Amino acid sequence: MADAKNTVLFPYETLKKLSMDAFQKFGFTEKEADIIQDVLLTSDLFGIQSHGMQRMVRYHKGITNGLIKIDAKPEIVKETPISAVIDGHDGMGQLLGHKAMEMAIEKAKKSGVGIVSVRNSNHYGIAGYYAKMASDQGLIGFSCTNSEAIMVPVYARKAMLGSNPIAWTVPADPVDFFFDCSTTVVTRGKLEMYNKMGKATPDGWAVNKDGVPSTDAAEVLGNISRHEGGGILPLGGATEVLGGHKGYGNGMIAELFSSILSQGGTSNKCMVGGKSNICHGFMAINPEFFGDPAEIKKHFSQFLQELREAPKAQGQDRIYTHGEKEHESVAKVKAEGIPVLNGTMLEVQDLCNELGLDFKSYFGDYVPEAPATMFKGNY
Amino acid sequence: MADAKNTVLFPYETLKKLSMDAFQKFGFTEKEADIIQDVLLTSDLFGIQSHGMQRMVRYHKGITNGLIKIDAKPEIVKETPISAVIDGHDGMGQLLGHKAMEMAIEKAKKSGVGIVSVRNSNHYGIAGYYAKMASDQGLIGFSCTNSEAIMVPVYARKAMLGSNPIAWTVPADPVDFFFDCSTTVVTRGKLEMYNKMGKATPDGWAVNKDGVPSTDAAEVLGNISRHEGGGILPLGGATEVLGGHKGYGNGMIAELFSSILSQGGTSNKCMVGGKSNICHGFMAINPEFFGDPAEIKKHFSQFLQELREAPKAQGQDRIYTHGEKEHESVAKVKAEGIPVLNGTMLEVQDLCNELGLDFKSYFGDYVPEAPATMFKGNY
Repeated sequence: MADAKNTVLFPYETLKKLSMDAFQKFGFTEKEADIIQDVLLTSDLFGIQSHGMQRMVRYHKGITNGLIKIDAKPEIVKETPISAVIDGHDGMGQLLGHKAMEMAIEKAKKSGVGIVSVRNSNHYGIAGYYAKMASDQGLIGFSCTNSEAIMVPVYARKAMLGSNPIAWTVPADPVDFFFDCSTTVVTRGKLEMYNKMGKATPDGWAVNKDGVPSTDAAEVLGNISRHEGGGILPLGGATEVLGGHKGYGNGMIAELFSSILSQGGTSNKCMVGGKSNICHGFMAINPEFFGDPAEIKKHFSQFLQELREAPKAQGQDRIYTHGEKEHESVAKVKAEGIPVLNGTMLEVQDLCNELGLDFKSYFGDYVPEAPATMFKGNY
Repeated sequence: MADAKNTVLFPYETLKKLSMDAFQKFGFTEKEADIIQDVLLTSDLFGIQSHGMQRMVRYHKGITNGLIKIDAKPEIVKETPISAVIDGHDGMGQLLGHKAMEMAIEKAKKSGVGIVSVRNSNHYGIAGYYAKMASDQGLIGFSCTNSEAIMVPVYARKAMLGSNPIAWTVPADPVDFFFDCSTTVVTRGKLEMYNKMGKATPDGWAVNKDGVPSTDAAEVLGNISRHEGGGILPLGGATEVLGGHKGYGNGMIAELFSSILSQGGTSNKCMVGGKSNICHGFMAINPEFFGDPAEIKKHFSQFLQELREAPKAQGQDRIYTHGEKEHESVAKVKAEGIPVLNGTMLEVQDLCNELGLDFKSYFGDYVPEAPATMFKGNY
């Protein structure tokens, strides 16, 4: 995703300050803004640009068009020692996700497992952020979400599921296992970035409204937001030969923990009728209920090390375990700055103007310039 | 996988009788044989030939070479209201799986969730069988296993994980959701079937010992069993462009619930040093702990129906939800007979001779004939 020509680097602290100011201008308290910016910038620190700064404008749009209600109070509609269902009443996804995962963690500490399902929420950023909250406390973490339909199931031509990411985290040395991925081939955020770069996407990512393969990110994003058909393929592709039914099935598991257990809106009902209808699922599992947590961690860490040391494919010099890239990205990005696309900065500039924030006070003389082909619709 | 030329149909009852007789000849009690044959033949009834009759000879080999101990007694090494760890002491995988899932179901009924991890087991058949035990009782079911390393992680050239299937089942009308899939592009069983048919596999399934793409099932299976390198690709393929790191990550989740929580052998330690070292994971979740189970089931069933009714891709007239194919296969196979490859029947004939069973008493005048290119090693 490196694209130096279209990218500019800014210090983490600069973007954090901007985010704190912007989210408070949106109407959130300082404490709330701090949670939201941490979810967003953790994504950028992890090198997952698609879910960091580049999404900020979408949240603002969500608030101004009434999808996100900044003063919503989450309601616990069902609770047991191992479970809870929360109605988010259209609140901010990051705040609901943070609260739900805190509950799951508390339950796992006491009862061994905590599963919390949330309905009537909004986009919550990277699924892995919440799973990581659990592994930071020595627990196994799980988080998933549904989202506006963009995944075209095998043999369909209309998107019916979201990118429906599932994240798992497990404590390990020297780096925690952190596995956060959409159940589509790629996320919508990746397409948004190709759109902002004005570049063709690789083959095998998406289909147009007729169900025909497309590498035109602007066309696919446009079709999705106009609900005209087409979208992104499930992991494994359009047919069963390479396992498209598996990606589609994994997407269904994200629905199960988010929209089904909470009886909320499934992906095909998200962003329809002036409501986000997004649902999330969270789980924390306490390894103490299976053995000595230190021994389990050691056992897992050894396997991860064996994976890193396995013989490499021709032309490759490294096998990654999940979480290493994110861990190394944090150090690099904190030292060199967070890469942000010019297309995103153009949106940030407009946002600053709208919010009455002084763009220059954060970014000096930098002037953003985006590709002329960029799709600027309300995706 | 239909291959009429190489396939012969036998009545379910014939194969059940053969299986009951054979497994009792192996040394199992009638009750044990009944569980084992039910796991195997459920796979054939579901149309998953790769994990049914065609595996029978492998189990016999496992017993004769000491990998599977027929008189092993499972030991519960840790137990809480929501969890258990079982040491299988190299017992038969189907029997351990059945017992572990029964425990998970019992815990879920009482406590809301049951998670059971099993170490020192053997190949247990289809993961979905155990998950289905939960959904048959109105619960959400989960089952996974590791297995002899055949998955080559992204950027590696040596197999380090098994096919590591994960199965999920959810009660639904008119057909329960049944999603059982390997985290590789395809299972080893699929390669075994192409080997028996003497056919080239599709592109994108496997790599040879140098990490170069191969469509030669006999070569790949031979390399795997000789531990010479190469193997099957993770779902998503050899690189990150189409998401190979996602299949690899999902394979790690199967390890987590099987070999990590139980502190058993990871896939790269399976079938090494005269020991199977296979581990399994099981989970049952009680929907009552989230809401009215009937309402949750209805909500899910509605989404499944919406998926089935979605606009179809060009040239397609049906969108499947997971479990429909298996459900329809049962009726078809019970009426028409279970399709078995000639190559498998050749193995069954040898087995009958070895066990002192009269092949003709089950199969009449049928004489099996297999392709000359078939790899007959101890895969």
